Amino acid sequence: MKAVFIGSGNVATHLALALQAKGFTISQVYSRTTNNAEVLANKLKTAYTIDIYEIDRTADIYFYALTDNAFKYFIRNFDVPNALHVHTAGSVSLREFDGFANKYGVFYPLQTFSKNRPVDFSEIPICVEGCNSGVQEQLLEIAKQISNKTFIITSEQRKKLHLAAVFACNFTNYMYDVASMILEDSGVSFEIIKPLILETAEKVQTLIPYEAQTGPAVRYDEKTIRKHLYMLSGKYTFRRMYRILTKNIHKRHKRK
Amino acid sequence: MKAVFIGSGNVATHLALALQAKGFTISQVYSRTTNNAEVLANKLKTAYTIDIYEIDRTADIYFYALTDNAFKYFIRNFDVPNALHVHTAGSVSLREFDGFANKYGVFYPLQTFSKNRPVDFSEIPICVEGCNSGVQEQLLEIAKQISNKTFIITSEQRKKLHLAAVFACNFTNYMYDVASMILEDSGVSFEIIKPLILETAEKVQTLIPYEAQTGPAVRYDEKTIRKHLYMLSGKYTFRRMYRILTKNIHKRHKRK
Repeated sequence: MKAVFIGSGNVATHLALALQAKGFTISQVYSRTTNNAEVLANKLKTAYTIDIYEIDRTADIYFYALTDNAFKYFIRNFDVPNALHVHTAGSVSLREFDGFANKYGVFYPLQTFSKNRPVDFSEIPICVEGCNSGVQEQLLEIAKQISNKTFIITSEQRKKLHLAAVFACNFTNYMYDVASMILEDSGVSFEIIKPLILETAEKVQTLIPYEAQTGPAVRYDEKTIRKHLYMLSGKYTFRRMYRILTKNIHKRHKRK
Repeated sequence: MKAVFIGSGNVATHLALALQAKGFTISQVYSRTTNNAEVLANKLKTAYTIDIYEIDRTADIYFYALTDNAFKYFIRNFDVPNALHVHTAGSVSLREFDGFANKYGVFYPLQTFSKNRPVDFSEIPICVEGCNSGVQEQLLEIAKQISNKTFIITSEQRKKLHLAAVFACNFTNYMYDVASMILEDSGVSFEIIKPLILETAEKVQTLIPYEAQTGPAVRYDEKTIRKHLYMLSGKYTFRRMYRILTKNIHKRHKRK
């Protein structure tokens, strides 16, 4: 199978490398900027273009790993009727292809990618959706070649999944960031809290988060909560978060 | 060295087992409830008591792994003048021993413990503090026998560390919990988001959280944020958290 990648960001990079490693031909990379296109093309040892009119039109499958807006612009201005067109975005509906492609689908790897951090794609859940059952099966087959964790997920479910991921990844990382700021303030190295962060994530690999919940909020240890709020005097933003999250955790566990 | 454990919760269990594995004699376990005392004593193959007057008074060191209030009550009612007395709490000052012990310190393992989940103590940071430099050195030596990550941390720093841990562990776990509720609502298994949770924690083992931040909030993708807020209509608690955390992340990264 011959594939073209539209986009050269983190998702494009990791996905293209994983597909190539499993024998897919990536014939070309498109990006708006020469530098980005070239970097990914070099990694894949393949061709690139920054001109939409020079995109290889003989591929079997086109992967769109673009921002939501760039994707909408692109799909309106690019047309290869016989090929399969798939986007890799969490929050873009399958319906966005309507009228702009005949065969289309979604191929959404649920992971946080960083450019210079290698990932083991076999452990990354891939959510697929197709415009019909044939396409869906085809995408599932492709997903199974690079990952052990494949799912058929509707656009509606994928949107919720993306929202859940904001909490489980983006907001979680911000909690780490707040912790790092508190430690920095008192001259304690962030190093010291790293094993706790890892164990917190590892715990919910076997326990459900509800059962894994610990801390002063869940047992409503008012004395400790008061001490913490006092320590956060003058840090209005942190104090407000502390209050709200503590209240929510307490409410959730009172219902036990 | 002969040690007695006052308390039989998660910290007591894991710490006592780790010390025993390194050759320490745990001569007795005290707990207020027979069942808890017995469970831990069986694990350690040692004696237990639920009577404060029957605690072995010949030990070299007494570990207090109690709730803050229980600790304060206990230290006022228990006295072995020549022994070393140490508590294991994050948020209790060393000063709480003043007037109730001659030799005392803190031995705080920074980790989230669950009773039936084995932990590798060698990877757990241990924060020690002593009433004088001799005691401090002695506690550091004990810590080094069970862990590769030992730190001398003042009471003031430890309080901040405990607060940071609430964000990095307790609040983080609540973010997982919210994600699990969102997924449950849309019939998607929590399984699918587990690798993302793990990678988010693994990322900050090498990157600082500030640099690891991703998501719609950091790039202020208003369209996605609006979609998410719309999806959370009717879920007031989640919506409020989403708004506040997004705003905070955006503010933090605007200053770049």
